[in-house]
Amino acid sequence: MPYQLYYWPTIQGRGEFVRLALEEVQAPYTDVARGKNGIARPMEKMAAGATPPFAPPFLVAGEQTLGQVANILQFLGAAHNLAPRARAGRLWVNQLQLTIADLVAEVHDTHHPIAVSLTYEQQSGAAKKRAAAFVDERLPKFLDYFELVLSKAGKGGFLLGARLSYADLSLFQLIEGLRYAFPAAMARLQAAYPRLANLREQVAARPNIAAYLRSARRLAFSEEGIFRHYAALDR
Amino acid sequence: MPYQLYYWPTIQGRGEFVRLALEEVQAPYTDVARGKNGIARPMEKMAAGATPPFAPPFLVAGEQTLGQVANILQFLGAAHNLAPRARAGRLWVNQLQLTIADLVAEVHDTHHPIAVSLTYEQQSGAAKKRAAAFVDERLPKFLDYFELVLSKAGKGGFLLGARLSYADLSLFQLIEGLRYAFPAAMARLQAAYPRLANLREQVAARPNIAAYLRSARRLAFSEEGIFRHYAALDR
Repeated sequence: MPYQLYYWPTIQGRGEFVRLALEEVQAPYTDVARGKNGIARPMEKMAAGATPPFAPPFLVAGEQTLGQVANILQFLGAAHNLAPRARAGRLWVNQLQLTIADLVAEVHDTHHPIAVSLTYEQQSGAAKKRAAAFVDERLPKFLDYFELVLSKAGKGGFLLGARLSYADLSLFQLIEGLRYAFPAAMARLQAAYPRLANLREQVAARPNIAAYLRSARRLAFSEEGIFRHYAALDR
Repeated sequence: MPYQLYYWPTIQGRGEFVRLALEEVQAPYTDVARGKNGIARPMEKMAAGATPPFAPPFLVAGEQTLGQVANILQFLGAAHNLAPRARAGRLWVNQLQLTIADLVAEVHDTHHPIAVSLTYEQQSGAAKKRAAAFVDERLPKFLDYFELVLSKAGKGGFLLGARLSYADLSLFQLIEGLRYAFPAAMARLQAAYPRLANLREQVAARPNIAAYLRSARRLAFSEEGIFRHYAALDR
Protein backbone atom coordinates (compact mmCIF):
# COMPACT_ATOMS: atom_id res chain seq x y z
CA MET A 1 0.00 0.00 0.00
CA PRO A 2 1.40 3.43 -0.89
CA TYR A 3 2.37 5.79 1.86
CA GLN A 4 0.02 8.70 2.43
CA LEU A 5 1.72 12.03 3.06
CA TYR A 6 -0.39 14.75 4.65
CA TYR A 7 0.87 18.26 4.21
CA TRP A 8 -0.24 21.67 3.01
CA PRO A 9 -0.83 21.33 -0.71
CA THR A 10 0.66 24.59 -2.00
CA ILE A 11 4.05 24.88 -0.28
CA GLN A 12 7.27 22.93 0.06
CA GLY A 13 7.50 23.69 3.78
CA ARG A 14 8.52 20.93 6.16
CA GLY A 15 6.76 18.39 3.95
CA GLU A 16 9.51 18.77 1.38
CA PHE A 17 12.07 17.01 3.58
CA VAL A 18 9.78 13.97 3.54
CA ARG A 19 9.00 14.24 -0.19
CA LEU A 20 12.71 14.24 -1.07
CA ALA A 21 13.28 10.99 0.83
CA LEU A 22 10.23 9.34 -0.77
CA GLU A 23 11.36 10.47 -4.23
CA GLU A 24 14.96 9.35 -3.81
CA VAL A 25 13.93 5.78 -2.96
CA GLN A 26 10.98 5.83 -5.39
CA ALA A 27 8.57 4.81 -2.65
CA PRO A 28 4.96 4.85 -3.85
CA TYR A 29 3.12 7.67 -2.05
CA THR A 30 0.07 9.87 -2.32
CA ASP A 31 0.43 13.54 -1.48
CA VAL A 32 -3.09 13.48 -0.07
CA ALA A 33 -3.93 17.17 0.22
CA ARG A 34 -2.89 17.80 -3.38
CA GLY A 35 -5.83 15.63 -4.48
CA LYS A 36 -9.20 17.13 -5.28
CA ASN A 37 -10.38 17.29 -1.67
CA GLY A 38 -7.57 19.50 -0.46
CA ILE A 39 -6.42 19.74 3.10
CA ALA A 40 -9.69 20.13 5.08
CA ARG A 41 -10.74 16.52 5.61
CA PRO A 42 -7.24 15.18 6.29
CA MET A 43 -6.75 17.82 8.98
CA GLU A 44 -10.04 16.93 10.65
CA LYS A 45 -8.95 13.32 10.75
CA MET A 46 -5.62 14.21 12.28
CA ALA A 47 -6.81 14.08 15.88
CA ALA A 48 -8.84 10.91 15.39
CA GLY A 49 -6.16 8.22 15.74
CA ALA A 50 -4.45 6.74 18.77
CA THR A 51 -1.17 8.57 18.07
CA PRO A 52 -2.28 11.99 16.81
CA PRO A 53 0.37 14.25 15.30
CA PHE A 54 0.62 17.81 16.57
CA ALA A 55 0.87 19.30 13.08
CA PRO A 56 1.54 18.40 9.45
CA PRO A 57 3.50 16.86 7.90
CA PHE A 58 2.50 13.38 8.93
CA LEU A 59 2.83 10.10 7.12
CA VAL A 60 0.42 7.18 7.22
CA ALA A 61 2.30 3.92 6.75
CA GLY A 62 -0.11 1.01 7.00
CA GLU A 63 -1.40 0.96 10.57
CA GLN A 64 0.95 3.66 11.73
CA THR A 65 0.64 7.45 11.67
CA LEU A 66 3.96 9.23 12.08
CA GLY A 67 4.49 12.91 12.80
CA GLN A 68 7.54 15.17 13.15
CA VAL A 69 9.88 15.34 10.15
CA ALA A 70 12.91 13.84 11.91
CA ASN A 71 10.75 11.00 13.19
CA ILE A 72 9.21 10.28 9.78
CA LEU A 73 12.68 10.28 8.25
CA GLN A 74 13.99 7.93 10.90
CA PHE A 75 11.22 5.52 9.92
CA LEU A 76 11.84 5.93 6.19
CA GLY A 77 15.61 5.71 6.66
CA ALA A 78 15.28 2.30 8.28
CA ALA A 79 12.67 1.04 5.81
CA HIS A 80 14.48 2.19 2.66
CA ASN A 81 18.16 2.03 3.53
CA LEU A 82 18.65 5.79 3.86
CA ALA A 83 20.45 5.38 7.18
CA PRO A 84 22.88 2.86 8.69
CA ARG A 85 21.34 -0.11 10.49
CA ALA A 86 23.87 -0.04 13.33
CA ARG A 87 22.83 1.98 16.34
CA ALA A 88 25.73 4.43 16.41
CA GLY A 89 25.33 5.42 12.76
CA ARG A 90 21.57 5.58 13.00
CA LEU A 91 21.73 7.94 15.99
CA TRP A 92 24.37 10.10 14.32
CA VAL A 93 22.17 10.64 11.26
CA ASN A 94 19.26 11.46 13.58
CA GLN A 95 21.44 13.96 15.45
CA LEU A 96 22.40 15.68 12.20
CA GLN A 97 18.75 15.79 11.13
CA LEU A 98 17.75 17.42 14.42
CA THR A 99 20.43 20.07 13.92
CA ILE A 100 19.09 20.72 10.42
CA ALA A 101 15.61 21.03 11.97
CA ASP A 102 16.91 23.60 14.46
CA LEU A 103 18.26 25.73 11.63
CA VAL A 104 14.99 25.37 9.67
CA ALA A 105 13.07 26.68 12.70
CA GLU A 106 15.43 29.64 12.95
CA VAL A 107 14.96 30.42 9.25
CA HIS A 108 11.19 30.42 9.77
CA ASP A 109 11.49 32.85 12.65
CA THR A 110 13.46 35.37 10.58
CA HIS A 111 10.16 36.30 8.92
CA HIS A 112 7.91 35.45 11.88
CA PRO A 113 9.78 36.52 15.02
CA ILE A 114 6.69 37.59 16.97
CA ALA A 115 3.69 35.39 16.08
CA VAL A 116 2.69 32.82 13.46
CA SER A 117 -0.80 34.35 13.58
CA LEU A 118 0.47 37.65 12.16
CA THR A 119 1.60 38.29 8.60
CA TYR A 120 5.19 39.10 7.79
CA GLU A 121 4.19 42.70 7.10
CA GLN A 122 2.76 43.00 10.60
CA GLN A 123 6.12 42.05 12.15
CA SER A 124 8.58 43.25 9.53
CA GLY A 125 10.40 45.58 11.93
CA ALA A 126 11.26 42.80 14.34
CA ALA A 127 11.89 40.48 11.38
CA LYS A 128 14.57 42.81 10.05
CA LYS A 129 16.38 42.73 13.39
CA ARG A 130 16.08 38.98 13.81
CA ALA A 131 17.18 38.33 10.22
CA ALA A 132 20.26 40.52 10.71
CA ALA A 133 21.29 38.49 13.76
CA PHE A 134 20.50 35.29 11.89
CA VAL A 135 22.58 36.14 8.84
CA ASP A 136 25.51 37.58 10.79
CA GLU A 137 25.69 35.14 13.70
CA ARG A 138 23.53 32.06 13.48
CA LEU A 139 23.81 31.13 9.80
CA PRO A 140 27.64 31.06 9.71
CA LYS A 141 27.69 29.07 12.96
CA PHE A 142 25.45 26.37 11.47
CA LEU A 143 27.20 26.35 8.08
CA ASP A 144 30.60 26.12 9.81
CA TYR A 145 29.27 23.12 11.68
CA PHE A 146 28.01 21.22 8.65
CA GLU A 147 31.20 22.00 6.73
CA LEU A 148 33.17 20.62 9.69
CA VAL A 149 31.09 17.45 9.71
CA LEU A 150 31.67 17.01 5.96
CA SER A 151 35.42 17.56 6.42
CA LYS A 152 35.51 14.77 9.00
CA ALA A 153 33.39 12.37 6.94
CA GLY A 154 36.08 11.44 4.46
CA LYS A 155 35.73 10.79 0.75
CA GLY A 156 32.37 10.66 -0.97
CA GLY A 157 31.10 14.10 -0.11
CA PHE A 158 28.08 13.07 1.98
CA LEU A 159 27.60 13.52 5.72
CA LEU A 160 28.59 9.89 6.22
CA GLY A 161 31.27 10.00 3.52
CA ALA A 162 30.45 7.72 0.60
CA ARG A 163 27.04 6.68 1.82
CA LEU A 164 23.92 8.76 1.16
CA SER A 165 21.54 9.27 4.09
CA TYR A 166 18.27 11.12 4.47
CA ALA A 167 20.16 13.91 6.26
CA ASP A 168 22.00 14.67 3.00
CA LEU A 169 18.68 15.12 1.21
CA SER A 170 17.51 17.48 3.94
CA LEU A 171 20.77 19.41 3.91
CA PHE A 172 20.37 19.85 0.13
CA GLN A 173 16.90 21.28 0.69
CA LEU A 174 18.16 23.55 3.43
CA ILE A 175 20.89 24.98 1.20
CA GLU A 176 18.44 25.42 -1.68
CA GLY A 177 16.08 27.23 0.64
CA LEU A 178 18.77 29.47 2.07
CA ARG A 179 19.91 30.42 -1.44
CA TYR A 180 16.33 31.32 -2.31
CA ALA A 181 15.67 33.30 0.88
CA PHE A 182 19.05 34.99 1.33
CA PRO A 183 20.71 35.15 -2.11
CA ALA A 184 23.04 38.03 -1.26
CA ALA A 185 24.19 36.52 2.03
CA MET A 186 24.64 33.07 0.53
CA ALA A 187 26.57 34.45 -2.47
CA ARG A 188 28.92 36.20 -0.07
CA LEU A 189 29.33 33.15 2.17
CA GLN A 190 29.52 30.39 -0.39
CA ALA A 191 33.28 30.43 -1.04
CA ALA A 192 33.81 29.43 2.60
CA TYR A 193 31.73 26.28 2.23
CA PRO A 194 33.00 24.22 -0.71
CA ARG A 195 31.91 20.93 0.80
CA LEU A 196 28.34 22.13 1.27
CA ALA A 197 28.29 23.40 -2.33
CA ASN A 198 29.52 20.02 -3.52
CA LEU A 199 26.92 18.14 -1.47
CA ARG A 200 24.16 20.28 -2.94
CA GLU A 201 25.35 19.54 -6.48
CA GLN A 202 25.74 15.83 -5.80
CA VAL A 203 22.22 15.50 -4.42
CA ALA A 204 20.69 17.58 -7.23
CA ALA A 205 22.38 15.33 -9.80
CA ARG A 206 21.02 12.05 -8.44
CA PRO A 207 18.71 10.66 -11.13
CA ASN A 208 15.58 10.34 -8.98
CA ILE A 209 16.08 13.73 -7.35
CA ALA A 210 16.86 15.43 -10.68
CA ALA A 211 13.69 13.93 -12.20
CA TYR A 212 11.66 15.08 -9.20
CA LEU A 213 13.05 18.62 -9.33
CA ARG A 214 12.03 18.85 -13.00
CA SER A 215 8.54 17.44 -12.34
CA ALA A 216 5.28 19.20 -11.47
CA ARG A 217 5.44 17.43 -8.10
CA ARG A 218 8.17 19.85 -7.03
CA LEU A 219 6.46 23.05 -5.90
CA ALA A 220 8.29 26.35 -6.28
CA PHE A 221 9.70 28.26 -3.34
CA SER A 222 7.38 31.12 -2.42
CA GLU A 223 6.59 33.67 0.25
CA GLU A 224 4.10 31.25 1.82
CA GLY A 225 6.64 28.69 2.97
CA ILE A 226 9.52 28.49 5.43
CA PHE A 227 12.16 29.87 3.07
CA ARG A 228 10.90 33.27 1.93
CA HIS A 229 12.72 35.91 0.02
CA TYR A 230 12.20 39.41 1.35
CA ALA A 231 14.90 41.81 0.17
CA ALA A 232 14.79 43.66 3.50
CA LEU A 233 15.90 40.50 5.34
CA ASP A 234 18.84 39.62 3.08
CA ARG A 235 22.29 41.15 3.67
CA MET B 1 32.10 3.36 32.89
CA PRO B 2 29.81 6.21 33.99
CA TYR B 3 28.23 8.41 31.38
CA GLN B 4 29.71 11.87 31.00
CA LEU B 5 27.18 14.65 30.57
CA TYR B 6 28.47 17.93 29.17
CA TYR B 7 26.32 20.94 29.81
CA TRP B 8 26.48 24.45 31.20
CA PRO B 9 27.18 24.04 34.90
CA THR B 10 24.88 26.70 36.38
CA ILE B 11 21.53 26.18 34.64
CA GLN B 12 18.95 23.46 34.17
CA GLY B 13 18.48 24.35 30.52
CA ARG B 14 18.23 21.58 27.96
CA GLY B 15 20.61 19.47 30.02
CA GLU B 16 17.87 18.95 32.59
CA PHE B 17 15.87 16.70 30.27
CA VAL B 18 18.89 14.38 30.13
CA ARG B 19 19.60 14.63 33.86
CA LEU B 20 16.04 13.58 34.73
CA ALA B 21 16.33 10.42 32.64
CA LEU B 22 19.72 9.55 34.15
CA GLU B 23 18.37 10.14 37.67
CA GLU B 24 15.19 8.12 37.14
CA VAL B 25 17.13 5.01 36.09
CA GLN B 26 19.98 5.71 38.55
CA ALA B 27 22.55 5.53 35.77
CA PRO B 28 26.02 6.46 37.01
CA TYR B 29 27.03 9.76 35.41
CA THR B 30 29.39 12.68 35.82
CA ASP B 31 28.05 16.16 35.19
CA VAL B 32 31.44 17.13 33.82
CA ALA B 33 31.28 20.92 33.75
CA ARG B 34 30.16 21.04 37.37
CA GLY B 35 33.54 19.66 38.38
CA LYS B 36 36.40 21.95 39.29
CA ASN B 37 37.46 22.64 35.72
CA GLY B 38 34.15 24.10 34.61
CA ILE B 39 32.98 24.24 31.06
CA ALA B 40 35.99 25.60 29.15
CA ARG B 41 37.95 22.44 28.44
CA PRO B 42 34.93 20.28 27.62
CA MET B 43 33.75 22.83 25.07
CA GLU B 44 37.15 22.94 23.41
CA LYS B 45 37.07 19.19 23.07
CA MET B 46 33.60 19.26 21.57
CA ALA B 47 34.76 19.69 17.97
CA ALA B 48 37.56 17.14 18.28
CA GLY B 49 35.69 13.85 17.77
CA ALA B 50 34.42 12.15 14.62
CA THR B 51 30.78 12.99 15.40
CA PRO B 52 30.93 16.50 16.87
CA PRO B 53 27.79 17.88 18.49
CA PHE B 54 26.59 21.32 17.44
CA ALA B 55 25.98 22.47 21.02
CA PRO B 56 25.61 21.21 24.59
CA PRO B 57 24.15 19.10 26.03
CA PHE B 58 26.03 16.09 24.80
CA LEU B 59 26.60 12.73 26.39
CA VAL B 60 29.69 10.58 26.15
CA ALA B 61 28.75 6.91 26.39
CA GLY B 62 31.86 4.77 25.98
CA GLU B 63 33.09 5.28 22.43
CA GLN B 64 30.08 7.31 21.42
CA THR B 65 29.36 11.05 21.71
CA LEU B 66 25.69 11.90 21.39
CA GLY B 67 24.19 15.35 20.89
CA GLN B 68 20.64 16.73 20.63
CA VAL B 69 18.36 16.08 23.62
CA ALA B 70 15.83 13.93 21.76
CA ASN B 71 18.66 11.86 20.32
CA ILE B 72 20.37 11.38 23.68
CA LEU B 73 17.04 10.35 25.19
CA GLN B 74 16.38 7.89 22.39
CA PHE B 75 19.70 6.27 23.24
CA LEU B 76 19.02 6.25 26.99
CA GLY B 77 15.45 5.08 26.48
CA ALA B 78 16.65 1.97 24.66
CA ALA B 79 19.52 1.32 27.06
CA HIS B 80 17.49 1.74 30.26
CA ASN B 81 14.00 0.65 29.33
CA LEU B 82 12.52 4.16 29.25
CA ALA B 83 10.86 3.50 25.89
CA PRO B 84 9.19 0.53 24.20
CA ARG B 85 11.44 -1.83 22.26
CA ALA B 86 8.97 -2.27 19.39
CA ARG B 87 9.41 0.14 16.50
CA ALA B 88 5.96 1.74 16.58
CA GLY B 89 6.11 2.58 20.28
CA ARG B 90 9.69 3.75 20.09
CA LEU B 91 8.89 6.15 17.24
CA TRP B 92 5.78 7.41 19.02
CA VAL B 93 7.78 8.35 22.12
CA ASN B 94 10.35 10.04 19.88
CA GLN B 95 7.56 11.98 18.16
CA LEU B 96 6.21 13.19 21.50
CA GLN B 97 9.70 14.20 22.60
CA LEU B 98 10.21 16.23 19.42
CA THR B 99 6.93 18.05 20.05
CA ILE B 100 8.07 18.82 23.59
CA ALA B 101 11.33 20.13 22.09
CA ASP B 102 9.37 22.42 19.76
CA LEU B 103 7.54 23.94 22.70
CA VAL B 104 10.79 24.34 24.66
CA ALA B 105 12.26 26.29 21.74
CA GLU B 106 9.19 28.54 21.65
CA VAL B 107 9.48 29.18 25.39
CA HIS B 108 13.10 30.21 24.89
CA ASP B 109 12.15 32.65 22.16
CA THR B 110 9.60 34.42 24.37
CA HIS B 111 12.54 36.12 26.12
CA HIS B 112 14.91 36.06 23.14
CA PRO B 113 12.80 36.76 20.04
CA ILE B 114 15.49 38.75 18.19
CA ALA B 115 18.95 37.38 18.98
CA VAL B 116 20.64 35.03 21.43
CA SER B 117 23.58 37.42 21.43
CA LEU B 118 21.49 40.18 23.04
CA THR B 119 20.26 40.27 26.63
CA TYR B 120 16.59 40.05 27.44
CA GLU B 121 16.61 43.72 28.37
CA GLN B 122 17.89 44.62 24.91
CA GLN B 123 14.88 42.91 23.27
CA SER B 124 12.21 43.24 25.94
CA GLY B 125 9.80 45.14 23.69
CA ALA B 126 9.70 42.38 21.09
CA ALA B 127 9.73 39.81 23.91
CA LYS B 128 6.55 41.24 25.34
CA LYS B 129 4.79 40.89 21.99
CA ARG B 130 6.08 37.41 21.36
CA ALA B 131 5.21 36.27 24.88
CA ALA B 132 1.65 37.57 24.49
CA ALA B 133 1.17 35.54 21.31
CA PHE B 134 2.80 32.56 23.00
CA VAL B 135 0.58 32.64 26.09
CA ASP B 136 -2.63 33.35 24.19
CA GLU B 137 -2.19 31.13 21.15
CA ARG B 138 0.72 28.74 21.20
CA LEU B 139 0.74 27.55 24.81
CA PRO B 140 -2.94 26.43 24.87
CA LYS B 141 -2.48 24.72 21.51
CA PHE B 142 0.41 22.63 22.85
CA LEU B 143 -1.25 21.93 26.22
CA ASP B 144 -4.47 20.90 24.44
CA TYR B 145 -2.41 18.49 22.41
CA PHE B 146 -0.65 16.82 25.33
CA GLU B 147 -3.92 16.60 27.27
CA LEU B 148 -5.48 14.91 24.22
CA VAL B 149 -2.63 12.42 24.03
CA LEU B 150 -3.04 11.61 27.73
CA SER B 151 -6.80 11.17 27.26
CA LYS B 152 -6.17 8.61 24.53
CA ALA B 153 -3.47 6.76 26.46
CA GLY B 154 -5.79 4.99 28.86
CA LYS B 155 -5.26 4.26 32.52
CA GLY B 156 -1.96 4.92 34.23
CA GLY B 157 -1.65 8.61 33.60
CA PHE B 158 1.52 8.54 31.50
CA LEU B 159 1.84 9.34 27.80
CA LEU B 160 1.84 5.61 27.05
CA GLY B 161 -0.74 4.86 29.76
CA ALA B 162 0.69 2.71 32.52
CA ARG B 163 4.23 2.68 31.27
CA LEU B 164 6.68 5.47 32.08
CA SER B 165 8.81 6.76 29.21
CA TYR B 166 11.47 9.44 28.97
CA ALA B 167 8.89 11.72 27.34
CA ASP B 168 6.94 11.77 30.62
CA LEU B 169 10.04 12.97 32.46
CA SER B 170 10.51 15.72 29.88
CA LEU B 171 6.86 16.71 30.01
CA PHE B 172 7.15 17.01 33.79
CA GLN B 173 10.12 19.35 33.38
CA LEU B 174 8.25 21.36 30.75
CA ILE B 175 5.27 21.89 33.05
CA GLU B 176 7.54 22.78 35.97
CA GLY B 177 9.33 25.30 33.80
CA LEU B 178 6.11 26.81 32.48
CA ARG B 179 4.80 27.20 36.03
CA TYR B 180 8.01 28.97 36.97
CA ALA B 181 8.09 31.26 33.93
CA PHE B 182 4.37 32.01 33.55
CA PRO B 183 2.75 31.52 36.98
CA ALA B 184 -0.28 33.70 36.29
CA ALA B 185 -1.01 32.16 32.91
CA MET B 186 -0.50 28.62 34.19
CA ALA B 187 -2.70 29.25 37.24
CA ARG B 188 -5.44 30.46 34.93
CA LEU B 189 -5.05 27.56 32.51
CA GLN B 190 -4.49 24.69 34.92
CA ALA B 191 -8.11 23.69 35.49
CA ALA B 192 -8.38 22.80 31.81
CA TYR B 193 -5.54 20.31 32.00
CA PRO B 194 -6.18 17.81 34.80
CA ARG B 195 -4.25 15.01 33.12
CA LEU B 196 -1.16 17.16 32.74
CA ALA B 197 -1.41 18.17 36.41
CA ASN B 198 -1.68 14.51 37.38
CA LEU B 199 1.31 13.53 35.26
CA ARG B 200 3.40 16.23 36.88
CA GLU B 201 2.50 14.97 40.35
CA GLN B 202 3.11 11.36 39.45
CA VAL B 203 6.57 12.06 38.07
CA ALA B 204 7.50 14.30 41.01
CA ALA B 205 6.51 11.52 43.43
CA ARG B 206 8.68 8.84 41.87
CA PRO B 207 11.31 7.94 44.48
CA ASN B 208 14.38 8.60 42.34
CA ILE B 209 12.99 11.82 40.94
CA ALA B 210 11.81 13.04 44.36
CA ALA B 211 15.27 12.36 45.80
CA TYR B 212 16.90 14.18 42.91
CA LEU B 213 14.63 17.22 43.23
CA ARG B 214 15.59 17.50 46.92
CA SER B 215 19.31 17.10 46.20
CA ALA B 216 21.98 19.70 45.47
CA ARG B 217 22.27 18.17 42.00
CA ARG B 218 18.97 19.86 41.07
CA LEU B 219 19.77 23.44 40.14
CA ALA B 220 17.13 26.10 40.70
CA PHE B 221 15.22 27.75 37.88
CA SER B 222 16.68 31.17 37.15
CA GLU B 223 16.76 33.99 34.65
CA GLU B 224 19.77 32.43 32.96
CA GLY B 225 18.01 29.34 31.64
CA ILE B 226 15.27 28.53 29.14
CA PHE B 227 12.37 29.02 31.55
CA ARG B 228 12.69 32.55 32.90
CA HIS B 229 10.25 34.51 34.95
CA TYR B 230 9.81 38.09 33.86
CA ALA B 231 6.59 39.61 35.15
CA ALA B 232 6.17 41.64 31.95
CA LEU B 233 5.93 38.40 29.90
CA ASP B 234 3.35 36.62 32.06
CA ARG B 235 -0.41 37.19 31.55
